[in-house]
Amino acid sequence: MISLDEIKVPLDVPQSKRDNYKRIFFEITQGSGRLMLMAGDQKVEHLNDDFYGPGISPEDADPEHLFKIASKARIGAFATQLGLIARYGMDYPHIRYVVKLNSKTHLVKTAQRDPLSLLWLSFEQLDYFLETKSVPIVGVGYTIYPGSEFEAQMLREAAQLVFEAHQRGLIAIIWAYPRGKAVSNETDPHLVAGAAGLGACLGADFVKVNPPSVKEGDPNLALKEAVAAAGRTRVICAGGKETAVKDFLSRLHGQIHIGGTYGNATGRNIHQKPLSEAVAFCNAIAAITFDGVSVEEAFAIYKES
Amino acid sequence: MISLDEIKVPLDVPQSKRDNYKRIFFEITQGSGRLMLMAGDQKVEHLNDDFYGPGISPEDADPEHLFKIASKARIGAFATQLGLIARYGMDYPHIRYVVKLNSKTHLVKTAQRDPLSLLWLSFEQLDYFLETKSVPIVGVGYTIYPGSEFEAQMLREAAQLVFEAHQRGLIAIIWAYPRGKAVSNETDPHLVAGAAGLGACLGADFVKVNPPSVKEGDPNLALKEAVAAAGRTRVICAGGKETAVKDFLSRLHGQIHIGGTYGNATGRNIHQKPLSEAVAFCNAIAAITFDGVSVEEAFAIYKES
Amino acid sequence: MISLDEIKVPLDVPQSKRDNYKRIFFEITQGSGRLMLMAGDQKVEHLNDDFYGPGISPEDADPEHLFKIASKARIGAFATQLGLIARYGMDYPHIRYVVKLNSKTHLVKTAQRDPLSLLWLSFEQLDYFLETKSVPIVGVGYTIYPGSEFEAQMLREAAQLVFEAHQRGLIAIIWAYPRGKAVSNETDPHLVAGAAGLGACLGADFVKVNPPSVKEGDPNLALKEAVAAAGRTRVICAGGKETAVKDFLSRLHGQIHIGGTYGNATGRNIHQKPLSEAVAFCNAIAAITFDGVSVEEAFAIYKES
Amino acid sequence: MISLDEIKVPLDVPQSKRDNYKRIFFEITQGSGRLMLMAGDQKVEHLNDDFYGPGISPEDADPEHLFKIASKARIGAFATQLGLIARYGMDYPHIRYVVKLNSKTHLVKTAQRDPLSLLWLSFEQLDYFLETKSVPIVGVGYTIYPGSEFEAQMLREAAQLVFEAHQRGLIAIIWAYPRGKAVSNETDPHLVAGAAGLGACLGADFVKVNPPSVKEGDPNLALKEAVAAAGRTRVICAGGKETAVKDFLSRLHGQIHIGGTYGNATGRNIHQKPLSEAVAFCNAIAAITFDGVSVEEAFAIYKES
Amino acid sequence: MISLDEIKVPLDVPQSKRDNYKRIFFEITQGSGRLMLMAGDQKVEHLNDDFYGPGISPEDADPEHLFKIASKARIGAFATQLGLIARYGMDYPHIRYVVKLNSKTHLVKTAQRDPLSLLWLSFEQLDYFLETKSVPIVGVGYTIYPGSEFEAQMLREAAQLVFEAHQRGLIAIIWAYPRGKAVSNETDPHLVAGAAGLGACLGADFVKVNPPSVKEGDPNLALKEAVAAAGRTRVICAGGKETAVKDFLSRLHGQIHIGGTYGNATGRNIHQKPLSEAVAFCNAIAAITFDGVSVEEAFAIYKES
Repeated sequence: MISLDEIKVPLDVPQSKRDNYKRIFFEITQGSGRLMLMAGDQKVEHLNDDFYGPGISPEDADPEHLFKIASKARIGAFATQLGLIARYGMDYPHIRYVVKLNSKTHLVKTAQRDPLSLLWLSFEQLDYFLETKSVPIVGVGYTIYPGSEFEAQMLREAAQLVFEAHQRGLIAIIWAYPRGKAVSNETDPHLVAGAAGLGACLGADFVKVNPPSVKEGDPNLALKEAVAAAGRTRVICAGGKETAVKDFLSRLHGQIHIGGTYGNATGRNIHQKPLSEAVAFCNAIAAITFDGVSVEEAFAIYKES
Repeated sequence: MISLDEIKVPLDVPQSKRDNYKRIFFEITQGSGRLMLMAGDQKVEHLNDDFYGPGISPEDADPEHLFKIASKARIGAFATQLGLIARYGMDYPHIRYVVKLNSKTHLVKTAQRDPLSLLWLSFEQLDYFLETKSVPIVGVGYTIYPGSEFEAQMLREAAQLVFEAHQRGLIAIIWAYPRGKAVSNETDPHLVAGAAGLGACLGADFVKVNPPSVKEGDPNLALKEAVAAAGRTRVICAGGKETAVKDFLSRLHGQIHIGGTYGNATGRNIHQKPLSEAVAFCNAIAAITFDGVSVEEAFAIYKES
Repeated sequence: MISLDEIKVPLDVPQSKRDNYKRIFFEITQGSGRLMLMAGDQKVEHLNDDFYGPGISPEDADPEHLFKIASKARIGAFATQLGLIARYGMDYPHIRYVVKLNSKTHLVKTAQRDPLSLLWLSFEQLDYFLETKSVPIVGVGYTIYPGSEFEAQMLREAAQLVFEAHQRGLIAIIWAYPRGKAVSNETDPHLVAGAAGLGACLGADFVKVNPPSVKEGDPNLALKEAVAAAGRTRVICAGGKETAVKDFLSRLHGQIHIGGTYGNATGRNIHQKPLSEAVAFCNAIAAITFDGVSVEEAFAIYKES
Repeated sequence: MISLDEIKVPLDVPQSKRDNYKRIFFEITQGSGRLMLMAGDQKVEHLNDDFYGPGISPEDADPEHLFKIASKARIGAFATQLGLIARYGMDYPHIRYVVKLNSKTHLVKTAQRDPLSLLWLSFEQLDYFLETKSVPIVGVGYTIYPGSEFEAQMLREAAQLVFEAHQRGLIAIIWAYPRGKAVSNETDPHLVAGAAGLGACLGADFVKVNPPSVKEGDPNLALKEAVAAAGRTRVICAGGKETAVKDFLSRLHGQIHIGGTYGNATGRNIHQKPLSEAVAFCNAIAAITFDGVSVEEAFAIYKES
Repeated sequence: MISLDEIKVPLDVPQSKRDNYKRIFFEITQGSGRLMLMAGDQKVEHLNDDFYGPGISPEDADPEHLFKIASKARIGAFATQLGLIARYGMDYPHIRYVVKLNSKTHLVKTAQRDPLSLLWLSFEQLDYFLETKSVPIVGVGYTIYPGSEFEAQMLREAAQLVFEAHQRGLIAIIWAYPRGKAVSNETDPHLVAGAAGLGACLGADFVKVNPPSVKEGDPNLALKEAVAAAGRTRVICAGGKETAVKDFLSRLHGQIHIGGTYGNATGRNIHQKPLSEAVAFCNAIAAITFDGVSVEEAFAIYKES
């Protein structure tokens, strides 16, 4: 557990916003320094693929399912597009929101054209939400694709996003996914570490990476390079595709305790479950992330809920 | 029927504009929550193809035909480019206008280059019309092409358009048409649902999609995925090419009562008819959309007018 | 003949500029509602091809030739680039100028790259000329190339140009030339009509098109579709390449009285003649356009001057 | 010789700046109406090729060589990038500077990609130099490449540069070089004339062209078309590659007295010589340009210095 | 050694910032006029390749290693991205920072696409750091790639960066690396000299180049052309890949005393060493750069530390 005083506030957070930044950091990590982010940006990133089909709860077809889970479960924050927040936030005013400020569809594949994802809204527009305080916006998120032919545009937007978030006392989270025709193995541990270090150079508070893959040995050990490379920027891992609950919890535990990561950002594994199971699953993830419980204890939480 | 109090106002509508937003929403849905949009943006999108030729009323050759219909028929709103509104609005000051803020021609095909359609005017320019109140502008429209290599530019413009419309208490309608070399089947139900969900993430009030096509079974059933995916954003279907009146009304009825859609946006099927028939046809559509009448009742309205 | 009261002022002309707009419209059409535009933008569009060579008066080699004609002849307005106006206007302060705000050279052919022509100056820069009133600027012109891969940029600039011109009480003229690899027949009547209708959707006061070509029959009849499609936006025809005077006048007469056009924009046919002949030719064109005289009467004016 | 009163001030020069404009025009042409521009932008345009190597004075290796010449020789003005002016101007505060506001390297050849050269600095940034008056800035320069696939961007910047220069009472000089895959013969006389006329349409005070080449006959005669096409915009010729002094002076004399040009812009032929010879050479050029001396007289000046 | 009075302040440094500029210049060169820049931008430029792997100290895996070295060693300034400075600066408030304002990854190779590296932050955003004075920011850095198809964008940004840095009394350093499909030999001495001269035309205070390579003879002699071409802009050499210490010091000594350069910018050779060795190595470099000691003396400093 960390105390408010231990939180290192980046220099681009103004004096008047330091307490706000610390409070948010404390809240979304529940004092643990580790983030449990419920990621809900897939309705753009993967269109309806993650929300409808075999093995997916019918409840997930409706976007409100995301808000129901986020409001009932123990999470750090819920990341999604501002448009959805604007339509559901009045009924879910207590969720801590991370606004995912860029998104693209998955229709154009890298073989056709390298990825480009641009800011949807300016910070001046976001300020409207901050000023009216209708919902608690705690941070912003942005995806960069190092290795894309268009990375220059995204690096610029990402750097400015971090700065502007900090100016407002908000947390900035960078999704860092190496991708493009120049990238042959997106989950190569050394490349993932590079992406994590890039997140640090952008000044992000958290950098979300895909877990590295290894030919042999424990992939969590491979995470250590990334965690080191990111320095004071905290690495969190993407949850990825649907996985058996226990396997998921076990992997998460290893990422944190072996790899040294600071939490996770999970989407599909949560919202593809029915509401009560999704909530239970979040609570189990939260117990590992925030409370440091064992896999068995977390699985018990999942089962009991 | 819905009451004014039941209308969920998105959070990006300021307090001072909430009544305006509710009033507009109520008016263009005539209290039904369903929209009947007369779409008149084809003079750019399809150039003169929809206005002149075999099977098209000679009256349709003149753009004023659109305004005559919109002023005499029972419709929710009439969508067209601002240039036309500026030239005819003084004689048709009681039509509720939706300004279609981007448009492109159909000359460059996807095989040559993926579609790109950009904003024609800024909101600062639109404000002139809102301030002078010469015509009642109730909303704005924008087409996105998910799957285009240029989608990033359009997604940004669309997200900002929704925000800026709501800031002014206006309704925002997104035309969401998957298109591009990456898109092999534009009317695949799952893809249409993805486009509808994307409209929701953009925060649109209504998302206009092309009705999905199915190899067998009722295509209206296939709409349910899209309607669910859009959540609180209301799906309306494009009217498409010229169709026999009864078939059209029957399809519309099914879209609403089987598919669960919230209305329709119809252009060619209306304006390619002579004025009196076009008005009668609109009235029949309106009766289904707003009043919930049966296909037979609607057809009788069409016949009697 | 029309009266000032009959002029329909577009809604984007502010109350305070309505009289200005009407006065200009009346002046450049000399009360006829038809425009005789002397087009002098070819020094960019065609470089020196139209000004020097066999069959071209040596006087035309000097750009001042254009100003001499425009100042002596009966014309509605003279369209050229602002740079030329800035250098000659002090000596020709009574010409009514239309500022052609975009221009490109003809060096890059469509087979190499689709056309793109961008605004040279902002309206804020144009305002300097309006405020100092050194010369009477009555309108602005802009060329769009529907069917170009870059049409989105030009449609945006054109729409904003019309709006900004009207805000200042000026006339907006759109040159609408379908062009690009996607366009196989630039003068197809149906396509020309589409371009004319596009001009209307942009809100232009006049739309300049190339006369349609037909395989058989009267090409002027083919213009009627375009004139109808443009509605309240008035179609004028480009003068095109050098033609025998009587043929030119006859074609113009037919365009107006058979095709229903509202005048013409003529460049090369005028300025490639020696000054006195060019003036006489303008006067003949003006007589047809403004006074409705017959071809024979107009030809007599040309001969007598 | 011209008097101050004879100088035609373009209309985009404000009343308050007219005297400034006239004074500058008079000074840089030394009352002759002809410009002798020492061109020193090659350190970007040609990198170090023009400054180091066989046949080039070792003094030319150091950029200060340019300033030494410009300060000691009789020239109209010295054109170079603002960065160099900022570093040497404090020691050479009496040179009249023309700021070359765009530049590119010659590394990417036309066969690879058409040329694009963009503004380096805004006029707001240039204003700092105008306001502090640390050095006398008398004008700005900009290169356009008609025929490049990117000409639209450059034409826009050039038009705005002329306008903004004139607003500040400065002289605007356009380097007009047809170039690109669409251009097969850059020095075709008719094309050079087109480029000169384009400079006029941009409103430039001077347009610098490459001397046309002819298969037979006097190339200076071929210049007459360009001089005529430019009208009140004054044509000056680029000096080109290293040439024997007498040949250079003879060519210059012919360009002025046969071709009708208004001076020259010479770089390499000047600065590749040792300081004293370079100064002498400038003085000889100046004598032809400003004083109208013969080639023999000018050569004597060169020899005697 | 130079005195404060001898420092030539560029003309774009305002009067009120001249003392600031001089003081910074004096400090980062320790009165020698030569810069010892510790370059730490590789976490973006080379991702994690320079920080983790065989032959690299494990300490280098953590970005704080850079700050530890920079705070303990004798250096002129430390260059890195603002994001890292924002996260570590509160603990290292006495390092003089140069903000590297653009950076790209090395994933996309030139064979695929020419390099483009864009500004990450605006000067308005940088001003926040200048105003709060939380860390001493002494300058900014920017990489240009002459010969890239995208050089126009970078030249513009670089020119503006130099101007804006000087306006604030800061030092501007240009990394000038010829690169692109048009560049066959990036370290050709003549091309390196061209890049150095380009840095001068941009107005940079220092221009960082890769040391030229020669087929035979002393490569330091080949540097003289670049040093001459840069004039008052001071050439510093990139340190390049890992090298034996004595070889490195010897090369540096030759670059300065034979080539005439004004220092060096070294990254990997420093930070890939353990902290104490890295500090010792910096001190040895500093002794050569600032104090003019011999290679042997410097090596002794390295050994003794």
